[in-house]
Amino acid sequence: MAVTPSTYPRRLLPLFLGLFQGALLLFFALFVTYDEPSAEDTNLASQVYSTFPFFQDIQVMLVVGLGLLLSFLPRYGFSALTHNFLLLNFSMQWALVLQGLLHHFHHGQIHLDLHKLLISEFAAVTVLISVGAILGRASPCQLLVMATCEIPIYLASEWVIGTRLGVLDVGGTITIHVFSCYFGLGVSKALFRATQQPLHPKETTTPSSDLVSLVGTLILWVFWPSFVAVLCQPGDAQHRAILNTLLAMSAGAITTMVASSLLERDGKLSTGHLQNGSLAGGVAIGVVADMAMPPVAALALGSLSAVACVLGFRFLTPLLRRKLTLHDQCGIHNLHGLPGILGAAASVVAVLVTSKDAS
Amino acid sequence: MAVTPSTYPRRLLPLFLGLFQGALLLFFALFVTYDEPSAEDTNLASQVYSTFPFFQDIQVMLVVGLGLLLSFLPRYGFSALTHNFLLLNFSMQWALVLQGLLHHFHHGQIHLDLHKLLISEFAAVTVLISVGAILGRASPCQLLVMATCEIPIYLASEWVIGTRLGVLDVGGTITIHVFSCYFGLGVSKALFRATQQPLHPKETTTPSSDLVSLVGTLILWVFWPSFVAVLCQPGDAQHRAILNTLLAMSAGAITTMVASSLLERDGKLSTGHLQNGSLAGGVAIGVVADMAMPPVAALALGSLSAVACVLGFRFLTPLLRRKLTLHDQCGIHNLHGLPGILGAAASVVAVLVTSKDAS
Amino acid sequence: MAVTPSTYPRRLLPLFLGLFQGALLLFFALFVTYDEPSAEDTNLASQVYSTFPFFQDIQVMLVVGLGLLLSFLPRYGFSALTHNFLLLNFSMQWALVLQGLLHHFHHGQIHLDLHKLLISEFAAVTVLISVGAILGRASPCQLLVMATCEIPIYLASEWVIGTRLGVLDVGGTITIHVFSCYFGLGVSKALFRATQQPLHPKETTTPSSDLVSLVGTLILWVFWPSFVAVLCQPGDAQHRAILNTLLAMSAGAITTMVASSLLERDGKLSTGHLQNGSLAGGVAIGVVADMAMPPVAALALGSLSAVACVLGFRFLTPLLRRKLTLHDQCGIHNLHGLPGILGAAASVVAVLVTSKDAS
Repeated sequence: MAVTPSTYPRRLLPLFLGLFQGALLLFFALFVTYDEPSAEDTNLASQVYSTFPFFQDIQVMLVVGLGLLLSFLPRYGFSALTHNFLLLNFSMQWALVLQGLLHHFHHGQIHLDLHKLLISEFAAVTVLISVGAILGRASPCQLLVMATCEIPIYLASEWVIGTRLGVLDVGGTITIHVFSCYFGLGVSKALFRATQQPLHPKETTTPSSDLVSLVGTLILWVFWPSFVAVLCQPGDAQHRAILNTLLAMSAGAITTMVASSLLERDGKLSTGHLQNGSLAGGVAIGVVADMAMPPVAALALGSLSAVACVLGFRFLTPLLRRKLTLHDQCGIHNLHGLPGILGAAASVVAVLVTSKDAS
Repeated sequence: MAVTPSTYPRRLLPLFLGLFQGALLLFFALFVTYDEPSAEDTNLASQVYSTFPFFQDIQVMLVVGLGLLLSFLPRYGFSALTHNFLLLNFSMQWALVLQGLLHHFHHGQIHLDLHKLLISEFAAVTVLISVGAILGRASPCQLLVMATCEIPIYLASEWVIGTRLGVLDVGGTITIHVFSCYFGLGVSKALFRATQQPLHPKETTTPSSDLVSLVGTLILWVFWPSFVAVLCQPGDAQHRAILNTLLAMSAGAITTMVASSLLERDGKLSTGHLQNGSLAGGVAIGVVADMAMPPVAALALGSLSAVACVLGFRFLTPLLRRKLTLHDQCGIHNLHGLPGILGAAASVVAVLVTSKDAS
Repeated sequence: MAVTPSTYPRRLLPLFLGLFQGALLLFFALFVTYDEPSAEDTNLASQVYSTFPFFQDIQVMLVVGLGLLLSFLPRYGFSALTHNFLLLNFSMQWALVLQGLLHHFHHGQIHLDLHKLLISEFAAVTVLISVGAILGRASPCQLLVMATCEIPIYLASEWVIGTRLGVLDVGGTITIHVFSCYFGLGVSKALFRATQQPLHPKETTTPSSDLVSLVGTLILWVFWPSFVAVLCQPGDAQHRAILNTLLAMSAGAITTMVASSLLERDGKLSTGHLQNGSLAGGVAIGVVADMAMPPVAALALGSLSAVACVLGFRFLTPLLRRKLTLHDQCGIHNLHGLPGILGAAASVVAVLVTSKDAS
């Protein structure tokens, strides 16, 4: 099974990865430690029980769900799954190092815990999203270089948005989805600037690869509430985040079918719309999920983002390809960009309404 | 990928669904709200941690497991997965509305929480089961009409059985499985009354589609204890429900292989028997799972239901088809009807024995 | 779908299994009971909530993940999944009986709880691993005979290692992985001693079966921390076990790609390496996961085991096949044997270092 295009210097990938693992070992040996066993075991135990199931759900989403979703190109399926897995691990480790250096460096030591791994995993998600713009057209080495650059830029941008601007974004709508979408599109433009490539013959789906990809969508759909809610304040806010996400995902799924069926000439559902539109609600809801807003807002936001996603696939992607020679292989602009912007707008409205209520 | 038969008025589906989503938005805007943030955050948090993992397990069962199980027809696989997903969302929303109106309407408001979503999901399961009787022979619109009718009838029947007759049925053996089986068979009879259809050429499985379907079975098999135990009293009853379900599923799986291997002329296992019989124990155990009965009863019930299910496939389904021209595409009568009746009988025995012990 | 080779006496399997289920029913009727409902419901409830999610994760690993991993032979996929499922259930029940008789027999009764089911499941894992050595070459009956013998031998060996020698092995590195590897290889040698079989034409993978198998790997990879941590002391030790396993799995995944890419002549990744090497870290870490060692040790151990696994596939397996006519169908010696031995060595080092620190 070919994982690399034929023109690729084949020793670069293991060299790069091997050096990185060596450096990581050195870094861990010098700086990373666990907390001393403490007397508050009960507290830690309850923290493990409250976070770990969410963490596992998110792992399933990223490793299995997203991997399968990206396997829609039949002959590229195995590579898509492999690259996704490689990039998740690489980016997570790289984010662990950078975040350790930036935020958690006390007395020459970084104390590792499940929460820090989770935060690094969130950083890695940006890479997994961006890669959707250039799927199947970039070599593994190019993908790794992209990941190496994207993680620090994400951390900087997340710091600006979260700490400097004070935006609360529990589900990463802006910090993860919008950011990684435009980062990925920029990379696509930079790498494949001049070439108006024809569709590769490998680039058509088969019933079997469509099924595999839809299973990926469904796994993401099921576990999305865990992704949005894991970083929320336990109790009321987390409960609300779970419910809002469930409502937005459910409304988004049905609205996708409505919109896709109306737009396609023969009334059939488009598989691409279904695979992506069903998830748009989850992207948009992240930034407002834990806010005290009425449930109808979650439904409406889910429906709107699904419509935006389907319209994007139908009209915007061909337009970008023709006018800007911008290839967006998996349509990340429709799944992460447009719904993310909708979510950001919704959060502005929510903040305005809330502050008006309070005054 | 065709989702609709060719003779189907293609604008009806989006119209119907679109109107429904609009009405749902209106309903939510007028009546549905969250609870006020309360001081008892700790309590709510612990409720979220105790229910949410079960809830996610059930979502995986219904969206991924059941969807894959229904994908055993190779060219209909994508549609089966899609229809299952659509019907789950539609029925859940519709049940949310009806249950809100019937049970939870206080001072003009419905307070939404995770438990109410879970109850609506249970209602939606009935539709997902019934659809097995007419899989691949009905249009999406027909399926939606069926769902629209089935949910209120289920709610009424559940109210009669649970509240009026006082039957405790934590795993939905009677209220969900038996009910939806006979509802589905009724719909099949009504829709395809006169036509003794020949087997469609698409209606044979391939090794690859059999594998996909078996994966669905296994996902259902793994998470079934969560489905049965989620509504039990926490503590002793819930623990017992989990164990009883595990025992019944395990005995059912092995007994299926015994029964199938004995019945098939060449001693080979039938894939259909395996895909369904392994789950029969879970159907039957639901109504008695949390009762104080000895573990051997769970094993025996699991084995018996598996035998009933395999015998049903071997003798009853062909009989129904020939004598009553009743087509049961997925054999829901064997998986949900017969084991459900067995479970109901077992619950009667259990109640009699317990009351005799007590006197 | 053929589940049995053609020369096989077809009535033996159902007879054997049927008798076993009958005996199990009798045993349960005579000796097995649940605990009396106690007043400490809160305690039990919190035990259920802390163990059950781990238990479900492990069930997904064994039933779905391992089953899919073994489905890499395209025409044997369905049988692999079925046999895995059968052996899990059979071995678990058989272990439940034996462990009950050996350890939990008080006043003529065995009190069943979730923990005892979990321990039986761990015993069943040994069979599922050993079967990898003879996959596709043994009849279901031969597999069942193997399981019947392996479970009591495992229980004896586990008692010697755990109780007599006092080795702590939370993740079963030695007691499960190393044991079952050499047991499986012994069975392979005994069954297929003389025959230097040519590769069967069915024994080549296809892109589609490789994809299915990799999905199995990824499911195992995601849930492995639950397997290692479930039996740990709640709190600090369990938290550390989770983190160490995550680190070892992540380092192992990347190191596998490095090693595989360097070893293959054309720089491509080998699918077999990827499917197995990514999991080697989890095998090795089990015996030291909850020890107070620095995080770098987990990373290093994960990397080393991945290298050992890949080297084993590249050099050792062909050697064993040529020199000892020892066929190891799935390469269990590379995934379970070598990393297990590495883990055992690491635990010796860890104990020595700790006791030196203490003195």
